[in-house]
Amino acid sequence: MKELILNNGAYYTRDGRCRFSLWAPDFKSVELKLCLPEGSRYIDMDEKDEKGYWRATLDKISPDTTYMFSLDNGREIPDPASHYQPDGAHGASQVICHEDFQWEDGSFSGIEISEMIIYELHVGTFTPAGTFEAVIGRLDDLSDLGVNAIELMPVAQFPGSRNWGYDGVYPYGVQNSYGGPAGLKNLINECHKKGIAVILDVVYNHLGPEGNYLWGLGNYFTSRYKTPWGNAINFDGPLSDQARLFFMENALYWLDRYHIDALRLDAVHAIFDFGARPFLQELSEAADNYSKQKRKKHYLIAESDLNDSRVIRPPSLGGYGCDAQWSDDYHHGLHTLLTGEASGYYLDFGKIAHLVKTLKEGYAYTGNHSKFRKRRHGNYAGDRPKGQFIVFSQNHDQTGNRMMGERLSALVSFEAIKLAAAAVVLSPYIPMLFMGEEYAEDAPFQYFVSFSDEALINGVRKGRKAQFKGFQQKGTPPDPQDEGTFLRSKLDWEKRAHGNHKILLEFYKALIKIRKETPAISSVNSVNMEVEGHEKIKILAIKRWLDDDPNGVLCIFNFNKDTVQASVSLTGSDVWGKVFDSADSIWGGPGAASSEAIAHGERFTIAGLSMSVYKGG
Amino acid sequence: MKELILNNGAYYTRDGRCRFSLWAPDFKSVELKLCLPEGSRYIDMDEKDEKGYWRATLDKISPDTTYMFSLDNGREIPDPASHYQPDGAHGASQVICHEDFQWEDGSFSGIEISEMIIYELHVGTFTPAGTFEAVIGRLDDLSDLGVNAIELMPVAQFPGSRNWGYDGVYPYGVQNSYGGPAGLKNLINECHKKGIAVILDVVYNHLGPEGNYLWGLGNYFTSRYKTPWGNAINFDGPLSDQARLFFMENALYWLDRYHIDALRLDAVHAIFDFGARPFLQELSEAADNYSKQKRKKHYLIAESDLNDSRVIRPPSLGGYGCDAQWSDDYHHGLHTLLTGEASGYYLDFGKIAHLVKTLKEGYAYTGNHSKFRKRRHGNYAGDRPKGQFIVFSQNHDQTGNRMMGERLSALVSFEAIKLAAAAVVLSPYIPMLFMGEEYAEDAPFQYFVSFSDEALINGVRKGRKAQFKGFQQKGTPPDPQDEGTFLRSKLDWEKRAHGNHKILLEFYKALIKIRKETPAISSVNSVNMEVEGHEKIKILAIKRWLDDDPNGVLCIFNFNKDTVQASVSLTGSDVWGKVFDSADSIWGGPGAASSEAIAHGERFTIAGLSMSVYKGG
Repeated sequence: MKELILNNGAYYTRDGRCRFSLWAPDFKSVELKLCLPEGSRYIDMDEKDEKGYWRATLDKISPDTTYMFSLDNGREIPDPASHYQPDGAHGASQVICHEDFQWEDGSFSGIEISEMIIYELHVGTFTPAGTFEAVIGRLDDLSDLGVNAIELMPVAQFPGSRNWGYDGVYPYGVQNSYGGPAGLKNLINECHKKGIAVILDVVYNHLGPEGNYLWGLGNYFTSRYKTPWGNAINFDGPLSDQARLFFMENALYWLDRYHIDALRLDAVHAIFDFGARPFLQELSEAADNYSKQKRKKHYLIAESDLNDSRVIRPPSLGGYGCDAQWSDDYHHGLHTLLTGEASGYYLDFGKIAHLVKTLKEGYAYTGNHSKFRKRRHGNYAGDRPKGQFIVFSQNHDQTGNRMMGERLSALVSFEAIKLAAAAVVLSPYIPMLFMGEEYAEDAPFQYFVSFSDEALINGVRKGRKAQFKGFQQKGTPPDPQDEGTFLRSKLDWEKRAHGNHKILLEFYKALIKIRKETPAISSVNSVNMEVEGHEKIKILAIKRWLDDDPNGVLCIFNFNKDTVQASVSLTGSDVWGKVFDSADSIWGGPGAASSEAIAHGERFTIAGLSMSVYKGG
Repeated sequence: MKELILNNGAYYTRDGRCRFSLWAPDFKSVELKLCLPEGSRYIDMDEKDEKGYWRATLDKISPDTTYMFSLDNGREIPDPASHYQPDGAHGASQVICHEDFQWEDGSFSGIEISEMIIYELHVGTFTPAGTFEAVIGRLDDLSDLGVNAIELMPVAQFPGSRNWGYDGVYPYGVQNSYGGPAGLKNLINECHKKGIAVILDVVYNHLGPEGNYLWGLGNYFTSRYKTPWGNAINFDGPLSDQARLFFMENALYWLDRYHIDALRLDAVHAIFDFGARPFLQELSEAADNYSKQKRKKHYLIAESDLNDSRVIRPPSLGGYGCDAQWSDDYHHGLHTLLTGEASGYYLDFGKIAHLVKTLKEGYAYTGNHSKFRKRRHGNYAGDRPKGQFIVFSQNHDQTGNRMMGERLSALVSFEAIKLAAAAVVLSPYIPMLFMGEEYAEDAPFQYFVSFSDEALINGVRKGRKAQFKGFQQKGTPPDPQDEGTFLRSKLDWEKRAHGNHKILLEFYKALIKIRKETPAISSVNSVNMEVEGHEKIKILAIKRWLDDDPNGVLCIFNFNKDTVQASVSLTGSDVWGKVFDSADSIWGGPGAASSEAIAHGERFTIAGLSMSVYKGG
């Protein structure tokens, strides 16, 4: 294929030639400053081209050369499209020779999204060391668990060394404290060698509040729309073509230079674009083109708060063409049944019916009135394949956006955690785990930052306190800037070997094994499904079967605390035999209280807060 | 069908019962104030319902009762959904009994949009009297011209008596100085009796700056998005369902209570809605439902600055379902060829190629770079039927938004005006004329207002001056508030009987007659088309034919000032015979200098700034 040439940043080739580019239409002159061992050297850049790009091409420079741009207002700034910031967000940028990396993943052909079992992790808190290298040391544990895709929370360079990643300010940079570009490539290379796909979380709706050197260079941002995190990126105003290209090429850069398999697009509802060619649509077309050239499918996964099936419809149907989206409705439906919480957006959930509708129609809110939003919300997605939705009982947001960052294991009983695990892993959608949930990590995942600007730090502290005033629970949120908050959020790998932690880990492995070995569960896009919910006794039954095997598999979930009796209307086999029971004593449960077999229309028993799998035929 | 019951305003039935409603969720009590001959009477309204509506139902009131709402902050306001403001924007509202009107249009079955010949008019300046009644007196002239649809610039009540209508503040009200509800109904009734459809211009993107009593009642507006005219209407935020309903029902109200045939939706690009069910889409679905119930098609025509074919695609293809849209690209392409103007948005036009592309693909900008907008603009619309585009060489905006409000006749020669007329009337799209253009009215159409707030008046004056500073031409724009500006903009009907005015009028009639009598021109949706443009000699050739008659019709437009020789590659007949020539002396031209016949591929002659029609076979 044609090599992907980037319009922004330093484009280095192995022969020692490097082209530096900066889109800064608002300036009249820009110099390139090379930070050489013998001292700084300033180089005039070529006359700004008609689109506003400044360029300079140099021969015979070393691939670890650091540089900055010197603007005509006297400021010297790092390259906003820097591939590496060895000294952090405020230091000089470093040239990277991507050709130098020895990839060994040629035989890895990717994982079909519909077959993924995703594991979301935050590099800084996943291990004690908090580096890419340390993640590699744990890949066998993940493989052993059954995971075949890891999703990295954003690794774009942010200020300091502690951040979830959504305050990133170098969309092309790889966090220095995690191990930089080489560290990330090593990790991806090792993943691929082990048959694990890598999904990267990228943020195209805003830049972080500190270290944003794009600010003031050109129309990268707009005041026309507001995001919760400040000025929106300019996707549809004057000079938006160049701002779009900066992010469009960023997506392709990760696929191309880092062999990333899929991108998770953060908060696409904050990508404001009223233009005739929405950015998401162009991005999905570009990613598809790239996939075709590479003969390997790369995926776009949207985080969307819109419940708008346009996001995942193909462009031929007027959609934006993303391959999948996160299903918050599934999470909220599950979480409220387990916790009984009803504040904030949980106000809109709490009934079995919400899960039933999400299973049947893609969203629980498909145009019906939302109390939380004070308006109707969503549209129909019932015709979308199940493989377009990713479900989870926990993720970084649903955990970390709580005042104390409690994981589900701190909120509900062990039986309830297993029920949640089964509802995700055996769901008709794509399951995603949040790091540590597989062994009921009881450390919290709290909100942490490491800014250097005192005013900003205090603002974040105040904002965090204000956010929870009179909400959810009393008390004071942990200090985001305190290193202890970060350290407290780290996984403790020792726990996995003991007690309920160990039992849960085995339980997850068993669930994933069932999923993989049961085509009626794992064939998400071609499977038939019946869903039945009993509101009063909080029972949910999901039956799935393949065209050539009408007996299929029946999963029954009891969200009631007590053992209940129920019946379900089932087609298929006369008698269904139990093959799995979360209440079983081997899973630390009270014993297998649920019926060993279920007959069509007859009453059966199911243990409180448990989940059983039945097979017919 | 089920009667259309409105959720806002006074809903009066002939039995003397009236239900008053106001959506004012931000208030704790609202009283209804009846302004009776014996004095005011205050009536408690029912407890606000859960959605925030205040209601009161009264029996035995007279249909001309005037009323206001008394709010708990001491303010007394007219009804923002008032059907009639007999004393203007700041006076009391009046109950209207719509059932009382004797409609006589039962036999009018509407005009297919693809067969429309539209005439845009401003009620206040169309006649000396400036009333609906006076328009009726001119309908025979319009019928005689060949027009079968009039498009009324907005008639929603605005402050004072002089306004284009886009400062309307009562979306349900009919301008008192034009003749109010009864006057409008009379006009529509008479139109329908004469076989003329009525299109109404409605504004759903903002309210005017004076007399907006919706402000402060609830979340009708939002600060999230900015329109050029102030706060955007809240189509997607909290409580947007009620704000949407206010405008949604307004559309149906015009169709139902006033027998309006089509709505022209002003500036849909300023209807900001990021929700999963865009307002435009819901509106088109509601209008379609209404049409089905009435067994008569009602149309939605969008004014859109987006070049986004989603606006006119059906919802099944992810579109918003509008029936048609104005084609600014066709106007700009034509205008720049005729005038040579190149400032503002005309910067993006000026070549024959722009018209050729617009003819072939729906827009001239389909994703290509726009210098004026400093970004790529538009998407593909080439698969949309020709009957989805409305074209014009003049309209209220293209005339009135010039500093001096000059019509095309003040800018170009008589030959060029005829050329423009032919390019519109004989186009493959739906033609629209702007009042007075048919006889080359030489009065300007200037920007006028009649506000009462001095600060606002001065603001408008200053804004108008600033708008044209260093633009287009030197000088000072006329004072918008001066009544003289309004009077200067009135048509002078006497002119039609004399000189070139009379010739042009006959010329328009002849063109419209040709259009109607030539199926290859009038069958816009089913016709075949070939377009050829010669950039250097500024010739445009459009050939159209029906499936069963490959000879069809050939229209040749010469935008060059001089007679030129050219040839066109034509399929079809061996020899094409001229049937119409704008340069003919009977049309005040220099004489029919163009070739009497054209043979395939051979050179022919066409007179400068002229247009000829050839038929084959």
